[in-house]
Amino acid sequence: MKLNILFTFLLISWVVNAQEDAKIIENMYNTSLSNGMSYSWLDHLSNEIGGRLSGSDGARRAVEYTKSELEKLGLDKVWLQPVMVPKWVRGAKESGYFTTGMDRHELHICALGGSVATPREGLIGEVIEVKGIDELKSLGPDKVKGKIIFFNRPMEPTLIETFRAYGGCVDQRYSGAMEAGKLGAIGVVVRSMNLRLDNYPHTGAMTYGDLPENLRIPSAAISTIDAEALSMALSNDALLKLSFKQDCRQFDDVESFNVIGEIRGSEFPNEFIVVGGHLDSWDMGDGSHDDGAGVVQSMEVLRLMKFQEQRPKRSIRVILFMNEENGLRGGRKYAEEAKFNREQHILALESDSGGFTPRGFSFDCSDEEFDQVKSWEHLFKPYLIHYFEKGGSGADIGPLKTEGIVLAGLRPDSQRYFDYHHTSIDTFDAVNKRELELGAATMASLVYLFDKYGLKDKKNIPIKN
Amino acid sequence: MKLNILFTFLLISWVVNAQEDAKIIENMYNTSLSNGMSYSWLDHLSNEIGGRLSGSDGARRAVEYTKSELEKLGLDKVWLQPVMVPKWVRGAKESGYFTTGMDRHELHICALGGSVATPREGLIGEVIEVKGIDELKSLGPDKVKGKIIFFNRPMEPTLIETFRAYGGCVDQRYSGAMEAGKLGAIGVVVRSMNLRLDNYPHTGAMTYGDLPENLRIPSAAISTIDAEALSMALSNDALLKLSFKQDCRQFDDVESFNVIGEIRGSEFPNEFIVVGGHLDSWDMGDGSHDDGAGVVQSMEVLRLMKFQEQRPKRSIRVILFMNEENGLRGGRKYAEEAKFNREQHILALESDSGGFTPRGFSFDCSDEEFDQVKSWEHLFKPYLIHYFEKGGSGADIGPLKTEGIVLAGLRPDSQRYFDYHHTSIDTFDAVNKRELELGAATMASLVYLFDKYGLKDKKNIPIKN
Repeated sequence: MKLNILFTFLLISWVVNAQEDAKIIENMYNTSLSNGMSYSWLDHLSNEIGGRLSGSDGARRAVEYTKSELEKLGLDKVWLQPVMVPKWVRGAKESGYFTTGMDRHELHICALGGSVATPREGLIGEVIEVKGIDELKSLGPDKVKGKIIFFNRPMEPTLIETFRAYGGCVDQRYSGAMEAGKLGAIGVVVRSMNLRLDNYPHTGAMTYGDLPENLRIPSAAISTIDAEALSMALSNDALLKLSFKQDCRQFDDVESFNVIGEIRGSEFPNEFIVVGGHLDSWDMGDGSHDDGAGVVQSMEVLRLMKFQEQRPKRSIRVILFMNEENGLRGGRKYAEEAKFNREQHILALESDSGGFTPRGFSFDCSDEEFDQVKSWEHLFKPYLIHYFEKGGSGADIGPLKTEGIVLAGLRPDSQRYFDYHHTSIDTFDAVNKRELELGAATMASLVYLFDKYGLKDKKNIPIKN
Repeated sequence: MKLNILFTFLLISWVVNAQEDAKIIENMYNTSLSNGMSYSWLDHLSNEIGGRLSGSDGARRAVEYTKSELEKLGLDKVWLQPVMVPKWVRGAKESGYFTTGMDRHELHICALGGSVATPREGLIGEVIEVKGIDELKSLGPDKVKGKIIFFNRPMEPTLIETFRAYGGCVDQRYSGAMEAGKLGAIGVVVRSMNLRLDNYPHTGAMTYGDLPENLRIPSAAISTIDAEALSMALSNDALLKLSFKQDCRQFDDVESFNVIGEIRGSEFPNEFIVVGGHLDSWDMGDGSHDDGAGVVQSMEVLRLMKFQEQRPKRSIRVILFMNEENGLRGGRKYAEEAKFNREQHILALESDSGGFTPRGFSFDCSDEEFDQVKSWEHLFKPYLIHYFEKGGSGADIGPLKTEGIVLAGLRPDSQRYFDYHHTSIDTFDAVNKRELELGAATMASLVYLFDKYGLKDKKNIPIKN
């Protein structure tokens, strides 16, 4: 009989909770869709400020603007966390061409972030096309010396999740110049990380590792249409000459900031839930998808949490990370200080995959934690959120990884993402208002559930008095 | 012991089938994504032919083009099914404005399909704003007589499935002029069916029912930004005057065609599976999403089925329906002839919700049939297809409804659809190649499964000899 009473009590409590959760999540979506701020924040960030590469004036203004907007939300605390960041400047617009016979083909080209400049008059040389770093290495120094290496392995179109196709190619961009430099090449051009054929070159980070200065060679991306044209031309004329010119330069590190806002928890203020995106962007477009969208969605999460009748139990932070694109200094800095201050984080959620229709989340956590998260999946179905999978989370929150924290990444539809990623067309008009707002509400709903229920396999830390 | 053997046999057969299905579905996606025809067909349909309103030269050319492309696929039979269709012509570009005090606000305006023209010099009158037909009726003839009625109920932003928001508004566009005409109004302007604020008016079908000629009043759509401006202006000046001018005209019906292609089934040739979209479109853009996408995806389904090693068991038809937008004559004609010929259809699948990332299908069928369909859902998960729900299917296939047929609609992501629907910006550049190709493969996979397994609650009809 007693068991029956206990069972009835548990059942009622489950039903009441489920109804309350459904109601609050519905409010999150309704508010974001009919009365949201994310789109107008993005409008300002993209159209009034624009590109926000670490160390740039745009990055400085973005720090000021988002700090001031977070202050308007009436959070308990808004502050700047100083961090030293690299400063790389593109300089004059790049140019390039190849010639075969009497024909000259102009290239849509841009320097990769972190690359050295070419000589002032540009670089010229014969070209060797390879499909990847292994093929390059197999050629050896004799064949590579004095040449421009052309990395031309395309993203694999049959991979449904386009980030996997990106992951299968990006080593060419990131390490191509380092590897080619070791073998005596004089320059590198890389096929843009883009699934479609168009004329936009895609920039992105590259590294020289610890190569000595004299082996650091200029590297640039060319558009996918140019990559196809160059490959075709090479098959007819292996001795054609390619030339490109770029003016970029690495400066000393400068000070910048993560922007942080916090709502203090009512019951467990020393347990933290963080949500964020990265404030820096590449310099060629507005960085609207990468990662203006994640920034304004994360700000909206705090705004939606503030709208709730009850103060959250746990402390909720929004973190706008600096320097994801070419250093990850902001993410590392935040994790360092959190560790130093012995702050206990139970969830870190990042949005850094574009502002497209949200499909769900990927989670980096234990099996037990994942079981807990999966038990909430049904609450998201009315919002067409179906994707709850284990997998990666986000670059900025990666350094927080430890036991007892769930790392999560918002997973929007990814089919169009690499049309825009790191290009001059990653601009405000490429973001749809509703899609952006749906993402913010989806994130807020997950944050609400983590705040309400905590992590089951974790002792809650009561308020220190 | 015998039972054990039977069980083992069934289990092995299930596993073998599931593996074969997974393999074939993977091939469908790989082929569509790496070697598909849908995008280049759409390029031609949109950029070489353009708008394809029933009875127009564009519609005629689209019939010729798609017939000729289907013939190139080596299907068993390709033919034209004649059907008489309405012919409505927009005429000279519409214009309109309202004046309040000394200010004149120009309108982004277009005639609704089927509307009569205004007098040559245009129409002018005071405006009454209503939120819907009920509110109009409650005003009664005294207040309405001689006025222009402004229907301004917006689409509901909090509905996640945007087609529901459309369904909740479209009566204003479809029946607004008929109802206002009965009460003596002189004209109607309708807020465009659009979830965002922009300057593009959205056309679409309207009806006068059986109203006598003298009560048929001109009706037009204005952009959402103009609707907001007009509403604001009316709140300050209830007596402001609005004027608009349109030159459209209804002609006698003309002959047109459904375009049909068929692969004859090897085992049950008298059981039919049909897949289709509508070939006609509105006249203001290219009709790339509505419904060029559905047309080329359906053609691609037959192409992908042709690629299979084995001829399908059942007869597979692609039907490119004429006149969905303003009459549904093509859909009715096909169903009529199918009934007359006693053709047994087991599946009709339509794609008419845009060329965006596919999310799944909605099914109009019995519970038993739905159970069968749901048993295939897991096969689609690797392709991020999660939405298998009961619901509507497609307008063109609706007339086929009877017992023993599953009607289905492809359900792509709908968030952006009403940004483009029935506007001048429903053009080729708004369609993403991969998203289009994913939709075609998703449809082909469902068709493959229906072909292989048939409908369980249905007797297969053997070949007549």
